[in-house]
Amino acid sequence: MSDPSKVAFLGLGAMGFGMATNLLHHFPNTTGFDVWAPTLSRFTAAGGNAAQTPVAAVKGAKYVVFMVTSAAQILSCLFDESTDTDTSTSTSAATALEKGAIVILCSTTPPDHARAVRQKLDAVGRSDVAVVDAPVSGGTVRAADGTLSIFAAGAEADVRAAKPVLDGMAGSNLWVIEGGLGAGTNVKMVHQVLAGIHVIVACEAMGFAARLGLNTQWAFEELQRGEGNSWMFGNRTPHMLVDDKKIYSAVNNFVKDIGIITTGGRAVGLPLFLSSASEQVFVAGFSAGYGAKDDAELVKIFLPNDLNLVLEQTSLATTSSKDASKLDLVAKLMAAVHLVAAVEATTLGAKVGLQPQQLFDICVGAAGTSFMYKDRIPQLLSGKWTSKKTVDKVIAELKVSVEAAQQLKYPLPLSGTALQLLQLASLRGLGKEPDVAISRIWDGVDGPLFPGSKV
Amino acid sequence: MSDPSKVAFLGLGAMGFGMATNLLHHFPNTTGFDVWAPTLSRFTAAGGNAAQTPVAAVKGAKYVVFMVTSAAQILSCLFDESTDTDTSTSTSAATALEKGAIVILCSTTPPDHARAVRQKLDAVGRSDVAVVDAPVSGGTVRAADGTLSIFAAGAEADVRAAKPVLDGMAGSNLWVIEGGLGAGTNVKMVHQVLAGIHVIVACEAMGFAARLGLNTQWAFEELQRGEGNSWMFGNRTPHMLVDDKKIYSAVNNFVKDIGIITTGGRAVGLPLFLSSASEQVFVAGFSAGYGAKDDAELVKIFLPNDLNLVLEQTSLATTSSKDASKLDLVAKLMAAVHLVAAVEATTLGAKVGLQPQQLFDICVGAAGTSFMYKDRIPQLLSGKWTSKKTVDKVIAELKVSVEAAQQLKYPLPLSGTALQLLQLASLRGLGKEPDVAISRIWDGVDGPLFPGSKV
Repeated sequence: MSDPSKVAFLGLGAMGFGMATNLLHHFPNTTGFDVWAPTLSRFTAAGGNAAQTPVAAVKGAKYVVFMVTSAAQILSCLFDESTDTDTSTSTSAATALEKGAIVILCSTTPPDHARAVRQKLDAVGRSDVAVVDAPVSGGTVRAADGTLSIFAAGAEADVRAAKPVLDGMAGSNLWVIEGGLGAGTNVKMVHQVLAGIHVIVACEAMGFAARLGLNTQWAFEELQRGEGNSWMFGNRTPHMLVDDKKIYSAVNNFVKDIGIITTGGRAVGLPLFLSSASEQVFVAGFSAGYGAKDDAELVKIFLPNDLNLVLEQTSLATTSSKDASKLDLVAKLMAAVHLVAAVEATTLGAKVGLQPQQLFDICVGAAGTSFMYKDRIPQLLSGKWTSKKTVDKVIAELKVSVEAAQQLKYPLPLSGTALQLLQLASLRGLGKEPDVAISRIWDGVDGPLFPGSKV
Repeated sequence: MSDPSKVAFLGLGAMGFGMATNLLHHFPNTTGFDVWAPTLSRFTAAGGNAAQTPVAAVKGAKYVVFMVTSAAQILSCLFDESTDTDTSTSTSAATALEKGAIVILCSTTPPDHARAVRQKLDAVGRSDVAVVDAPVSGGTVRAADGTLSIFAAGAEADVRAAKPVLDGMAGSNLWVIEGGLGAGTNVKMVHQVLAGIHVIVACEAMGFAARLGLNTQWAFEELQRGEGNSWMFGNRTPHMLVDDKKIYSAVNNFVKDIGIITTGGRAVGLPLFLSSASEQVFVAGFSAGYGAKDDAELVKIFLPNDLNLVLEQTSLATTSSKDASKLDLVAKLMAAVHLVAAVEATTLGAKVGLQPQQLFDICVGAAGTSFMYKDRIPQLLSGKWTSKKTVDKVIAELKVSVEAAQQLKYPLPLSGTALQLLQLASLRGLGKEPDVAISRIWDGVDGPLFPGSKV
């Protein structure tokens, strides 16, 4: 029988363990499941119950939360048969779910996944079960605090029914997204466009700073004050500046998430130049053996013959190590890439049907935020292009950085891509417009996605 | 006194040594200069004269050929002072040049370099000296055979005066380019857009074939028969399939040439997406220590944890090693990248003012040629878009390849870039047009660069 106090929590990884442990404060009768026995033991030590199979976990639970690593694992947990430990018979979790159970999908998956789960449950006669699309953002600390950002979507009654558990995991950071199953995942996808590009540009920029001979600790502090700053820059760069061997967020996470993004772009026919360029760096990192390492280590991809240069130059004391003109080369490329990233993400959001203002309100307060995102996207959404910097001015500044890197034979995959896009905008006659006019690159045959632009 | 039989040849590297040695058949009185003593000894052993300084080399010569590695070296040879070994006084080669001497610039340099040499000679009172912009293409074998392609430009009288030497180096492959000093270099630059991208896509494709588990010797043979074939693919891939340790063309050559290309694109405000993406791979290769190695070795950049996979799988005998459907994934991405490369190069040529038909006639017979270039560019130039494949069809095919690579976590920097551009074209309503419509991406505010397109 469905017990309104009982939660099943499937997937006790770095994020899931914190989320489930936190949920024990609100739902002491939470049962965890994971294929990795040690994490299950840790969870019982923290006061939870442990199940050996998905079927055993979901039995009796009103709420079933999934935080496994992929869509494939969710489908396997729900629809593959496993042993019901009470009866020693074999059945699927989909069959074993209590009547009216509420399935809450928190893993990051492709946007069509939640709808696929809904259809498969219907197909096996489980239309009584509610499904909520509820991807999360915020990292392991907020997972354990119960303050994750959660983007919840689905049938209105289902989202309402899931609210006690969602509130337990998100506190005041629960966002309800219009648009049905998949809309929450679309928000997460767009957020990861920003987050993923920002991680790579942080690596590209800090590697460049090091190759320019700058004191990297000083450069980090200075660059945070500039137009190229982002939440990710502030969060990831310290991991490049100390060698603590910790894994805050593994490269593999973004290999998966950015694959979802470029797949999503292909599905709606939208070119995502910076996302695609970032994907190549993440995948190159994976290929080079960085998959399980912290994503800040990708700075090493930019410095293959001086892997620790950023680390080594944290206290460099040459006379030119605090050269403001060299620092400006880095600042300018960061500003340009963050500008284009902000527009690319916002364009994808509009294209997949998200409400632009809500999307902005979510991302500006989350890990995907940046100076450029916060400053320029309101201009894009309102159509009031007040930026004092023109497209041609951004090009002129970025060119100087790109030419300096060319002299050093230092690769700039993101800055190089951003420059080509800006030049394309200028070729189209947008050079004298405020820089947010770069958005017009994505105009379709039906005209601009955003109203009120000046051109 | 100027001796009409005397040639000075500065720069006896891999190309220059063959060129100068061949010139001895036509001009036995050729004096070589190089900073590296062993090559100078080899040249005297081959029957030439040796000079210890640029000034000593140019004295008495009617023709002065430069095949040093960079624009900076040409300027140094001409305008820095060196010792006149006859008089033991110090002077510059520019001063020491015989009256009416003909300076022939064969090195690949930025397009404004030949004009800069002209201006500097005028500034030191040497308006009597002729300057010819004469970059070459064809590799070391043709250099030694005297059958290099040479793209000669400059004042008409100067080019005519240089003809005996140009004919000696080029045989029937001498092209006279309209447009004055720099126009020859522009031809070379556009040719290198094709050649450079084709080298990288050969690496990207063969690494992908290997990761797909194909027999790479078989894949190479099959792919040459397809729409993705290019001269570079046929020329470079054999160097991936045997481990002969030879350096046919060093990575550093393209690091330089592609830097000239992207600099040239910035100078005219034209976005060059594939050139820029290729530059990142060349520069990443340089950074990883491949600068002095053969450029076919860049396939290893795509396989950092299986450096010799392409080589190892030349005789792979598993049942799936000759899988036609996997091969097709490689063929399709090669076709798409070569299509976009052909259009990108032709667009740059038109933008820098080259005569499109002559440019095509040159490149189609040179190392930059490809199946796509030969088939699609006449359609672009005539405006008769007869290709049966639409933009959307190319996208549909390329998507399958990109998704397969994504599954394997194999990076595709060029194919990924090409896909974004094709999607941009489709977004603009060009999806149902023949694939050569991708050219409309580069339309400026003044309309298309190529007349007669269907849209």
